[in-house]
Amino acid sequence: MKKLHLLVITSAIAPVGFGKTGGAEITLNSMIEALVTLGGCEVTVLAPEGSVDNHRCVKLETTQGNLQPSMQNSQYLDAMQVTCNDMTLSLISRAFEIQDKYDAIINMSYDFFPMWCSRFFKTPLLHIVSMCSTTAYMDAIICQIYKENPQSLTFHTLGQSATYGINDFIAPIYAGFNHKKYKFHKNPDQCLIWAGRISPEKGIEDALEASRILCMPIKIVGLVEDEDYKLSLLHKFQDVSISWLGYMDHCEFVQEIGNAQAMISTPKWREAMGIVNIEANLAGIPVITYDSGGISEVVVSGVTGYVASKETPASIAGYFEKSVALNRQEIRDFAKKRFSIEAFYQRLCKWISHTVS
Amino acid sequence: MKKLHLLVITSAIAPVGFGKTGGAEITLNSMIEALVTLGGCEVTVLAPEGSVDNHRCVKLETTQGNLQPSMQNSQYLDAMQVTCNDMTLSLISRAFEIQDKYDAIINMSYDFFPMWCSRFFKTPLLHIVSMCSTTAYMDAIICQIYKENPQSLTFHTLGQSATYGINDFIAPIYAGFNHKKYKFHKNPDQCLIWAGRISPEKGIEDALEASRILCMPIKIVGLVEDEDYKLSLLHKFQDVSISWLGYMDHCEFVQEIGNAQAMISTPKWREAMGIVNIEANLAGIPVITYDSGGISEVVVSGVTGYVASKETPASIAGYFEKSVALNRQEIRDFAKKRFSIEAFYQRLCKWISHTVS
Repeated sequence: MKKLHLLVITSAIAPVGFGKTGGAEITLNSMIEALVTLGGCEVTVLAPEGSVDNHRCVKLETTQGNLQPSMQNSQYLDAMQVTCNDMTLSLISRAFEIQDKYDAIINMSYDFFPMWCSRFFKTPLLHIVSMCSTTAYMDAIICQIYKENPQSLTFHTLGQSATYGINDFIAPIYAGFNHKKYKFHKNPDQCLIWAGRISPEKGIEDALEASRILCMPIKIVGLVEDEDYKLSLLHKFQDVSISWLGYMDHCEFVQEIGNAQAMISTPKWREAMGIVNIEANLAGIPVITYDSGGISEVVVSGVTGYVASKETPASIAGYFEKSVALNRQEIRDFAKKRFSIEAFYQRLCKWISHTVS
Repeated sequence: MKKLHLLVITSAIAPVGFGKTGGAEITLNSMIEALVTLGGCEVTVLAPEGSVDNHRCVKLETTQGNLQPSMQNSQYLDAMQVTCNDMTLSLISRAFEIQDKYDAIINMSYDFFPMWCSRFFKTPLLHIVSMCSTTAYMDAIICQIYKENPQSLTFHTLGQSATYGINDFIAPIYAGFNHKKYKFHKNPDQCLIWAGRISPEKGIEDALEASRILCMPIKIVGLVEDEDYKLSLLHKFQDVSISWLGYMDHCEFVQEIGNAQAMISTPKWREAMGIVNIEANLAGIPVITYDSGGISEVVVSGVTGYVASKETPASIAGYFEKSVALNRQEIRDFAKKRFSIEAFYQRLCKWISHTVS
């Protein structure tokens, strides 16, 4: 692939640079790393006002508007929420204005209008769908775009695309990282670890319950998105030894993520991929997880952790011994093959090249 | 103005050809007549599926989608209602696809997205704003378009533009008709007449109350949009002699509209113009009306009727004697000068020519 000039539209939920969009921002960062350092692309990030460029290898373009609520807790038949000054509309409008400078535009905002507006663009507008099916209107526009121009759209996993009723999609983009960044812990702490946004759909209570069953301390890493939820957990799990590590800068995060016996992943919603599971495996730590959305494509049972047979804390706890018996170096090596930054770059190239040569 | 190829986008509320959008459809028809018969333009009407071409002088292009609710009863802070299969989105999307065939596109759909999408079009997209201020988001987009490209937008009256806080707009488009179509009644029926959609914002109860005060029968002409509202009127005004004439084909309507002593107009909402008042005056009948939105620019007090000093049925009734004393031929002649189809065509030309030469 030639060295492209790319515009990347970020989520309209929050400015980038502060970890507020969780996995979406991690994906953004790894994609930028792949495209810039491996592909020599020139990348401009179009993001909400207040965003910060932590990369120093991209141009940052910002627009004003009302930040959007996240769709993670939407009900399927929820009505579309649009205001006249929506950040989503602002982002797509700005992208339209500056489109001529770019070979392609990659939209990472999970919203109706960036997709619906594809028809208006001269410069190819590509979409990375970041969530499993949320609402009827998102299903409709995603299926429409996929039908009209299947190459313009990609998903993180097959399990994710299937939630839209799309069963002929075969090239998931996953994600990828430089494994060297992730500290390998030969003698990790005698505890469990959980990482993600502190928010009810992430099901932290199940991880804490597993910790209770195993009589093992647990580290909780992540931005507190829902303070009441955290308080309710504190109240309910007073007997569990919890280390609340809070939001970690990614440089700290990569040092810490492998420093436990096993990572626990117990989402109550359908995870598109569970990017943190990839990062955990790259650090060599086994992941014990519920089978949700695309997670089981990322965590290979018996190789890089275990996908629990039931969605219960007891089931998670039941896989602990098997998980710690896995060879951590082999976990890391296996993850490296699939989720290296190079592998991710190759997948990105293949996807983008269908549209831009 | 040269003979243009024009695409006219109609309201997304209902198919055209059945009078369901009231004044909007009358405006559409008079505009088509002006542009086609006087201007020699080729006009394509883009309208919801199920529309019927009553003109036989235009091409009809239809699209599928969910018909939109009307905004006539919106609250100012109402949220925008959008579904993935909205007729509005369908219309604007189709217009985008076929834009290259036209010199200009005239949008008559009072909606956010046809305006917001202006930025995406190569072919000039012009807007006739058909209502007074309804919601905050419509105010915002109308003011934005007016600021960015004032010539691309027109209003029916100055009073209407003022409801958007726009006070430097000086060229209202009004409407216009061939006065010969409107039957002049030298000896009209001894009654009042009211015409419009049968819907609460039209304030028919006040017209009936005026009729009661004057002890004079009243004819009610128009599509019953709200059956419960009509029933409540029947119940409340059992002592008033009401002739319910129902929806009239425009050919019948022009015969009937002048056949009363005076027309009563008592809107409870802000009328952009009150197109029926123009038609009444062209038939020679005086109009007694509340001062609402742009009505007082159309009905000239003491010349073509009276604008009541108070918004009460008693005030309306108080102007009856003065109104019937006006010379009906003079009313007609005065209205002809301002609201002939030729005058309307000249205003349309002037407006369109700012953008398309």
